[in-house]
Amino acid sequence: MPKIQVLQLTEVTADILKRLGEKEENAIEAAKAMVAADMRGIDTHGTRLLVLIYQRLKEKMLQIPTEIEAINDESATSIINSNNGLGQVAAIHGMRISIKKAKQFGAGMVLIRNTNNVGVLGYYTTFAAQQGVAGIMMSNAAPSMAPWGSSEPFIGTNPISIAFPSRDFKPICIDMSCSIVSRGKIRAAARRGEKIPYGWALNKHGEKTTDPEEALEGTIIPLGDYKGSGLSIIIDIITGIISGSSYGNKTETFHKLMGPTGIGVCCMSFDIKKFMDIDTFYSLLEGYVTSIKNLEKKEGISEILLPGEIEWNNEVKSIEEGISLPQEIVSDLNKILEEVGSKTRL
Amino acid sequence: MPKIQVLQLTEVTADILKRLGEKEENAIEAAKAMVAADMRGIDTHGTRLLVLIYQRLKEKMLQIPTEIEAINDESATSIINSNNGLGQVAAIHGMRISIKKAKQFGAGMVLIRNTNNVGVLGYYTTFAAQQGVAGIMMSNAAPSMAPWGSSEPFIGTNPISIAFPSRDFKPICIDMSCSIVSRGKIRAAARRGEKIPYGWALNKHGEKTTDPEEALEGTIIPLGDYKGSGLSIIIDIITGIISGSSYGNKTETFHKLMGPTGIGVCCMSFDIKKFMDIDTFYSLLEGYVTSIKNLEKKEGISEILLPGEIEWNNEVKSIEEGISLPQEIVSDLNKILEEVGSKTRL
Repeated sequence: MPKIQVLQLTEVTADILKRLGEKEENAIEAAKAMVAADMRGIDTHGTRLLVLIYQRLKEKMLQIPTEIEAINDESATSIINSNNGLGQVAAIHGMRISIKKAKQFGAGMVLIRNTNNVGVLGYYTTFAAQQGVAGIMMSNAAPSMAPWGSSEPFIGTNPISIAFPSRDFKPICIDMSCSIVSRGKIRAAARRGEKIPYGWALNKHGEKTTDPEEALEGTIIPLGDYKGSGLSIIIDIITGIISGSSYGNKTETFHKLMGPTGIGVCCMSFDIKKFMDIDTFYSLLEGYVTSIKNLEKKEGISEILLPGEIEWNNEVKSIEEGISLPQEIVSDLNKILEEVGSKTRL
Repeated sequence: MPKIQVLQLTEVTADILKRLGEKEENAIEAAKAMVAADMRGIDTHGTRLLVLIYQRLKEKMLQIPTEIEAINDESATSIINSNNGLGQVAAIHGMRISIKKAKQFGAGMVLIRNTNNVGVLGYYTTFAAQQGVAGIMMSNAAPSMAPWGSSEPFIGTNPISIAFPSRDFKPICIDMSCSIVSRGKIRAAARRGEKIPYGWALNKHGEKTTDPEEALEGTIIPLGDYKGSGLSIIIDIITGIISGSSYGNKTETFHKLMGPTGIGVCCMSFDIKKFMDIDTFYSLLEGYVTSIKNLEKKEGISEILLPGEIEWNNEVKSIEEGISLPQEIVSDLNKILEEVGSKTRL
């Protein structure tokens, strides 16, 4: 896999976004968010999205430059309209407001109306954590799961992320969807002509299937059956309904050109210092991590990893050695560079 | 199963708590919370807990009357010490503060230090919802799951509940643990001498077991493997570490007399009105519920139920017909009534 330096990929991504009409500061913010996903090894949510952004712009399904508009702002809460702009720009903007509110009021909650795919939620919650507050983020997504009891897609995999600050800048961060598995893994099995494990997905009649093609016509099984279904509904109500965005089966996928996605996002932060001296917290957290690392390991496990640790290790490696980016993404980005009139190539 | 009227069970429960030394207003609050669990069909978290409360008092492992002390209170946040008192009293107190803060600042977050088993979290979040705000609650619990990669119990099933208000007073409410199943269900199977399904738990050697006694000595499997493990760690950090309570394997179970539990709780609320007109929200939510109800059903499913609907239906039935309470609980309560010098019997 080609290795691309972090700075180079960030500059190229920001340059593409500027040439597509985004404002410079927004282009840089969005580029940093996308490159962070690639650095963490989550290239499904990284600069690969530039291809979709470019297609959506051509089809007038995305609005650039991203114009963020305040709808209401009172004490610890705020709601902003992203006007169908770049999700990454809205998300970092929303998280910055929530951090500011957390520092002022102890807790902050910001809803983002009408945005798009924001990429990796853990990037924004880690951003909050690295500013000394705990960050929480949720997003809704296009329908791919059935509410428990139904066989019809209605709710999305609706991810949630929570991150805590630590003394060494390395956060504890969960970033998980409400489904048992990503739709991408099912698509990959279909491409390879392989069966999928029993328990991943249902066919369109609501029956468990090991056939990936049947699964793609059906629904993904929620995490823990009714629990993941319930959690996805709750996240949809907060991010979709209360934000004034799309929700349920009104939300469109970012991956096909069916129309604006109508995605809604929730950014929350809280200030640990209102509850506990921050140095005491850092010390307790370090002790907690050490206790977990020292627990008895399952057979075949060499190290117990904390939530977010794999992604953090990938990020450090990407800084040291460059980002491993699939050739297909490099080619796509070079093609876009050519089309937008840049002489730079990756 | 004997049927007990709601009012009678509440009065008897409050009377027992008063005779055990609790203040009248606290006894009534705790009784309402316990009876609500029984009304919802979750008798593992209801008046059955009186037996454990009585035992803990005798062993001086619980402090009654519950003395709640403010540690810090600023804008949207508050932290209180429950001083090892009744969990139900601390929980309703914490939720009341968070509701007040949500109405004033838009969002409120309250941490409770050093409390005990609070019973059903959904009771408190529903309480918030019925006052017009969204309620969120989390609690840590005694170690019963292994962090992913380990075979040793360290984290609890750490439940989370979220509830939204609705026009008809019937909330949408999730109340779920981070495990594939609640420890209460395994304890219930043990009491009944029944096997548990394969895939719920591991014995102390890390092997899957269908014996509930072996499961209680081993670990419960986290919801979605590493996802539930991560979510449980995150909830432990918020409710255990940041609240200044016990956490990880320092937390003791309420169900055995091993010492004070050291449980920590987080109560959050937010005011939907800061983001959206509340009547618009109610209408959108009704439409959302109707859309879900009208989705295609799985074979054998007569109605798609929203999160919390089973418990709500049980509650309504309990009001109409009385609470179905296992004979064993009725006998235990009658025995306590006798011991505390009451002439009343259920």
